[in-house]
This record gives sequence, structure tokens and C-alpha cells, in this order.
Amino acid sequence: MRDYKILLNEVLERIKPSESERRILSNIIRKVMGRAERYLVKHNLDVDVKVEGSVAKDTWLSGDRDLDIFLRFPKSIGKNGLIKFGLEMAKFIAGENYVECYAEHPYIEAEIEGFKVDLVPCFKVDSPSEIASSVDRTPFHTEYVNLRLNGHLKNEVRLLKKFMKGIGVYGAEIKIRGFSGYLCELLTIFYKSFINVLKGSLKWHPFSTIIDIEGYYVGFEDEALKMFNSPLIVVDPVDRKRNVAAALSLNNMCKFMSAAHIFLKNPSLEFFFPKPVQPLSRSEILEQIHERGSEFMFILTGCPKIHPDILWGQLYKSLEGIENLLRSFDFNIINSTVWSNEKDLVIFILELERLNLPTVKRHIGPPVYNLDDSERFLRKYLYSSKVLSGPSVENDRWVVYVKRKHTSAIKLIRDDIFRARLGELVKSAFQERFEILVNEEIIDIYVKNPFFASFFTSHLHGRPGWLKL
Amino acid sequence: MRDYKILLNEVLERIKPSESERRILSNIIRKVMGRAERYLVKHNLDVDVKVEGSVAKDTWLSGDRDLDIFLRFPKSIGKNGLIKFGLEMAKFIAGENYVECYAEHPYIEAEIEGFKVDLVPCFKVDSPSEIASSVDRTPFHTEYVNLRLNGHLKNEVRLLKKFMKGIGVYGAEIKIRGFSGYLCELLTIFYKSFINVLKGSLKWHPFSTIIDIEGYYVGFEDEALKMFNSPLIVVDPVDRKRNVAAALSLNNMCKFMSAAHIFLKNPSLEFFFPKPVQPLSRSEILEQIHERGSEFMFILTGCPKIHPDILWGQLYKSLEGIENLLRSFDFNIINSTVWSNEKDLVIFILELERLNLPTVKRHIGPPVYNLDDSERFLRKYLYSSKVLSGPSVENDRWVVYVKRKHTSAIKLIRDDIFRARLGELVKSAFQERFEILVNEEIIDIYVKNPFFASFFTSHLHGRPGWLKL
Repeated sequence: MRDYKILLNEVLERIKPSESERRILSNIIRKVMGRAERYLVKHNLDVDVKVEGSVAKDTWLSGDRDLDIFLRFPKSIGKNGLIKFGLEMAKFIAGENYVECYAEHPYIEAEIEGFKVDLVPCFKVDSPSEIASSVDRTPFHTEYVNLRLNGHLKNEVRLLKKFMKGIGVYGAEIKIRGFSGYLCELLTIFYKSFINVLKGSLKWHPFSTIIDIEGYYVGFEDEALKMFNSPLIVVDPVDRKRNVAAALSLNNMCKFMSAAHIFLKNPSLEFFFPKPVQPLSRSEILEQIHERGSEFMFILTGCPKIHPDILWGQLYKSLEGIENLLRSFDFNIINSTVWSNEKDLVIFILELERLNLPTVKRHIGPPVYNLDDSERFLRKYLYSSKVLSGPSVENDRWVVYVKRKHTSAIKLIRDDIFRARLGELVKSAFQERFEILVNEEIIDIYVKNPFFASFFTSHLHGRPGWLKL
Repeated sequence: MRDYKILLNEVLERIKPSESERRILSNIIRKVMGRAERYLVKHNLDVDVKVEGSVAKDTWLSGDRDLDIFLRFPKSIGKNGLIKFGLEMAKFIAGENYVECYAEHPYIEAEIEGFKVDLVPCFKVDSPSEIASSVDRTPFHTEYVNLRLNGHLKNEVRLLKKFMKGIGVYGAEIKIRGFSGYLCELLTIFYKSFINVLKGSLKWHPFSTIIDIEGYYVGFEDEALKMFNSPLIVVDPVDRKRNVAAALSLNNMCKFMSAAHIFLKNPSLEFFFPKPVQPLSRSEILEQIHERGSEFMFILTGCPKIHPDILWGQLYKSLEGIENLLRSFDFNIINSTVWSNEKDLVIFILELERLNLPTVKRHIGPPVYNLDDSERFLRKYLYSSKVLSGPSVENDRWVVYVKRKHTSAIKLIRDDIFRARLGELVKSAFQERFEILVNEEIIDIYVKNPFFASFFTSHLHGRPGWLKL
């Protein structure tokens, strides 16, 4: 067996929060708590103000600048009361710089001394069975984790989180569809060390792995698989009906498994600290596009102003819709992705075998011995101006060679993009304006926009930096 | 129900042999028999000389110029004796103009007063169970048919044969893989009229229809289906182990069924007397090629000097081999065929979506959880110069984007045609020389060769003339 200790110690030295970082964070917490106290006194309210998230569990990483503060109101205040007083209190705490956000419930995202502080109103309930929304459940997660994570295991969580971040699968948000912090903590509790999580993952199998720490489904594994129907199932110890890994995509589950596999063979710092992507130069990128011999179609449009989770949900859905539209007209897609700066620009990237197809298309009809179908087919095609050859019989079927409706992918998108299944907001963005660029026509955008350039470079490169054997 | 009588009577008027035709044929038979008699007397041999084929059964069509004469030797003469004396006698009868042919056994194809006279030596046996080769069986077929075909049914056979010829499915030879004369006769005996054969065929289903006049397989239909495993099974009344339709292709079975279907809906003379194909003019054919937007590859080579059955067997096999080679490198074939004048020219015609493919090709590897396969895959591609992107993980699999070995179909054929499964004689022809023409480059050959022009015109047109609803 390999000894990973030296390497992991080196990683830990860099990711454990320092004393000075902890001090800065403590000061901010004290300040927030003070403001909360003042609000409560002033309004004579009975609200439990609690630090939650990775700070509460001491599993945060050096350099993190996130703080979650939960404002736990009594259930008696009611849903409207929670929204009214909760947001008011959160804004009071936030001070000058904040935005109002909507997840399941509204909350305030404040910026306080360089930290992103989420101020989340919720109900204080006695048990997870009484929750009204998922934020009410969070304190129970914290409690569960804190009872089981000793000092050593906290660092194992840190290694796992940093590994996940390094390979790009950390975060349950829609843009990523990766592993949440809580999921990392549960995996560490279950497998008892970072290395054991990696080793354990080599035995995972998509849609048939259940990690069930509390053993709720012992003897009922098949029912659990059917009920959750997810690539990975990690039963929530505080709510047996919930899969903590519900947001995890098959792709990210498998990316993690593959990275674990390679790390165990060939460990390196690069998994934790990947080198930033160096965008290819103007001439290099043009050469790569040319060398591939395929054809790139870039669809540019504006960016809907909306919470990133909704934005990315719509972007992925729209990408799939565009792909399906192209495929339904026989365009072969080699690869596709979507990029956005989440401000004013969205770029769908589609790499096609060819932007143009021949006019003629072979269309296979019914078997000759299905007489009614055959007659319908013949009546449709016998005198149609779309027909180039046939109808004729090939093997046991009627066949006709017709003119394609769309021989140009560009024209198809330009004329018929709204026939694709698009997210509503993306549809509106397209309705306002969109632009199609082909192959090297992207170069001005590429040169002007280093974030897009990095993204496109690593999309073209494909191979992760840690992938060495 | 429609009344086809007038139409069919009109057809019969044109296809029943006239009295003068019958007289000419009788004279030739008398002449041949006389020569045979002289040979037998001279050599003191006991040989039964018999007219066989459609003439013996009186099912020949006006205009046919074929005559089959069987020389039935006693079995005691032995195989070598049959070949020696059989061919000698056949050549004596043939006179000046003949060629020696090889099917199962050698025979002589003579030209006598404008007739093609096949002189076929065979053994005279007492029952079909004693036959040494299929030609020995023929007299039993003739006997069987003559016992069951009355004057009226003979004309029904003539209608069926002419219909089969008109729609291009008549003849059991390899080039056609259609219905033999004997098969037409049996179908007429079974269904009792031409129209009933057509109607009956609408109930056929490929690989599950058995026509078993003598009822050999009653109660054992499943065994018969398994044993014969052919699109259509017509049990030979004189040899229960033989499928008379063994040579019939699925395509021709279905072409017949489709033509029957259409004829019964919309009868016309065109099924029996199709208009000859008018080749498109030079400019028309160029326009059609252009309009389709696809790309034609014509592979030209010399023609092996060999019996047409062997030639066409090899041509079809080679066409399939060339198609498979192109497909294995991802070239999409819309349509293909092969033409030959059976003298000095063979042209393989392949219509491709594109002659050129992009360099980049997506190659899907093993699932990440198959650890050994994944390592093998990674070792193969991680440092390969063929890789353009990746390896990376997509869904649950390793994927790599590699450079295609062949981006040009022309170069593939030029460099690697001998990697295709070819008939031996076609391979030799290619080794001597072959030429690739693309799209309009075929035009000189097209203009110079009216037979090829007709063939290519009807290949492009596809639709049979009788196909009207």
C-alpha cells in the first residue's frame, strides 16, 4: 500500500484555516451576532440566531470567505410573518451591501468585510419531521455532523472537499451538479478517512450504490434504489426520505470515481491545486479549430438576469433542446457545451461533423406486406415534389429518397431555433437578439474575453491536468 | 371485385406463341433430334434425348428463343463417361456455334438458327431420390408440371412469367435472384390462376410462408421454416428436401408482393410491357447529380471472363465488401449498386453523404468503474499522438477525441481497397487496374455507353414505371 501521508500533510498545511483567519472570522461572527441581538431587543422577538454551514462544523477551507447565519423564528409567526420579519431582520444585519435572493425561500446575501454572508430566515422546529422547507433542516445536519466529526475527521473532510474542488465536482448548485459540503462530511463519516472515501468510490456503480449510515434501508435496498433512482444514493441520516446526493450528476459521480482511481495509482498535488488553464493564443486556437476539421457553431445571446441556479438550469435545458433540434434534422454533433459570464453574455458551443448535409436523404417506409401502411406511404410520396428517387422496394420495405428540409445547420438555427425546447428566459433572450458565429469567426470574442478563452481552451483540451499514469 | 379479363386477354394475345413460331421451333427440334439420332446410331449408345424446360411444358412466351435438350445417359456410364461422351454428343449436335459452359456439370450452349439451345448431358434415373446432380432432377419437374397443367393453366403461367419479367424479378440466376420458370409453374398450380397468385402473395410474410403443394410438412411447419430458413419456401413436390424458391432474394420476393398489391389496385399493361428506360441526357444527368448534393464514387475495373452466375456472385460480394470497408471508417452510404457489361467493364456505384469526414472523431471508451479496462484505455490514449482532446469522462465513460485514420473515401479506396472482402476474380481485376471517378467525372463513360446510361438513369430514378395509384 502507498503512503499518502506526506502528500496529504502538505495539502492540509495549505488548506487548514490559520489562526489569523479564524480570528478574522470570529470578529465578523461577533459583529453579526451583535447586530442580530440589537434587532431582537428592539423588536422584542424570540429568534434563535445560529452559525450554520462549514463554519459551524469547522470543515471550512483556508481562503473560504463564506458565512451562513440562520435566523430561526418560532413556527407561530407563520409563513408571511417569516418572510416579512425574517427579511427585515436579515437586512438590518446585512448593513449596506446586500442582495435579496430566492431559493426555496427568500434570503439575504450580504457582503461584510470581504465575506459573503448568507442570512437565512427559517423556522425553528423540534425535529426534522416538522420542517416546512429544506432550510429548516440544515441545523439538524449541523448537529448530526458535529456529534460525529472529531478533530481528525474534520481535516479528512477538508481534504475531500479540496479534492472535489480541484477536480471540479464540488458544489450542489445547478451549474455544477456536484457534491455538497454536507455530502462530503457524510462520506467522511461513513468511510472514516479521505483515502477510504476514494477507495470506497472504486466500488460504486451508478444507480446501484446506497450509502446508508443509519441503516434505514437494511433489507430494503431494492426499494431504496427504485424510490431514489439516482446515480448515487446517500440516505440523509436526519431524514430517511431524502437522498443527500440527489443533485449529483452521473457525470460528476463518475469524474470523482475516475479521479479517485488515478489518485490512488499516482497521487499528486495537482488534484488539489490544479494549475490554472492558460488560454491558447489567437494563432494556436485557430490552428486547433482548423486541425480538427469539424465545424463549430457558436450561438451568442444576452444573459437573463436571474439567480445562477435558475440561469444554469435554463442554459442546460436549452442546450439540450438545440442539440435535439439539430439531431432531428440529422446533423451529427461531436460535442457541445454552454458558457456564460452570468452577466450579459451566453455562448452555446456546438461542434458538428458538418454544417451542411446533402440534399438527398434516404427515408425508409413500411414493409411491403403492411398493405395499409404501404398505401398511405405511397399516396404521400408518389406524386410529391420532395421526392428525388423512388418509391422503390429495398429488402422488404418501401424506400424513398427525398429532399431534406434543412441542409444547413446555420439556416436551421436561424429560421427555426424557437422550435427547440428552450428555457423561457433563454427564449426571451433569443427573441431579443442572437448571433451565429462559425469556426474562426469566434476569434474576436475569444481574444477580448479571457474567461471565455480559458473555458474554450479547456473544453478543446478536454483532458484534466491530474490525468497521468 | 375487379374484372381483369380484358386486360389479361390483351396480354395473352401478345405473349402466346403464334403458330408460325411453334412451327419454327418444331423444325429446330426435329433437326436437333435428327442429329442426336445420327450420333447415337453411329456410336451405338443408349441415350434418352428429351426436350425439357418451358418448351416441354408449353409455358414459353412468344419471342423466347431458348431450347433445353437433355441427353439422358445410363448411370452405368459413370461420371467421367458422362462428361466425355455427353460433351462429345452435345458438341456433335451443336454444330458450328457453341460454347462450353460450367454450372454444376459442363454443358454446351449452342446457337442454332437464332435459338440458344442448351445441350445438357445428365443421368437417366428412375426416381428423384437417385439423382447425382440437379440436372438429373429436371425431367421429374417437367413430368410433375405436365401432369397438372391443362391448356388454360399454361396461359396463366405465361401471364405470371411475363408479369415477373416485366417487373424484373424473373430468373433464378445469381444476377437476378428471382423466380425460376418452375417456381412460376408451381405457384400457378397451387393458386390455380395468375390473379390468385397475386392475391395469395399479399398474405406472404418473409421467412414465415410455406407453400407445400404435396403437404409434406403438414403439422411440421415450424421445422420446415427452420430447416429452409428462406424468405419464401416452396417445397419441391418431387424432392421434399428442396426449396424451389431457395435462390429468391428477400428483395425480389417483396418487389413481387408490392407489384401484385399495386396491380390488383390499378392494373395496367405496363407491368407486363414496361417502357424501356430512356437514358437522361448529358445535361440532365449532371443536373440530377448536382441536385442530390450527395457525392458519387464510381470504381471502374475490368471484367473477369467467367460464367455470369460466378461473375455476379463475385460482384455482389465485392460490393458488400467495399460498402463494409467504407462504413467501418464512418462513411455514410446512401445507396450502392454494381453494373457490368459482362465483357470488359465493371462499375461499382457508391453514393455517399460525403467523400470527406472531419479529422476529429469521438471515440467512446469503457465505463470508469471498469478499472482494468479504464487503465488499458488510458495507457493507450494518454500519450498518443492521435489524440486531439481528452481522455475525459462523459457521463459514466471515458471518451477521447482522436484523429481519424481516413478522412477521404477516395484515399481509403485507393490505398486500402484490398482490405475489403472481395471476390477472388474481382480482386485480380483490381490488382490489374482500377480507376476512381467522382460525380460528374463519370460523364464520358455515361455518354459513350448507352447500356450503362440506362442502368444509371433507372438507378437514379428508382421508381418503377408501373407504380401508380
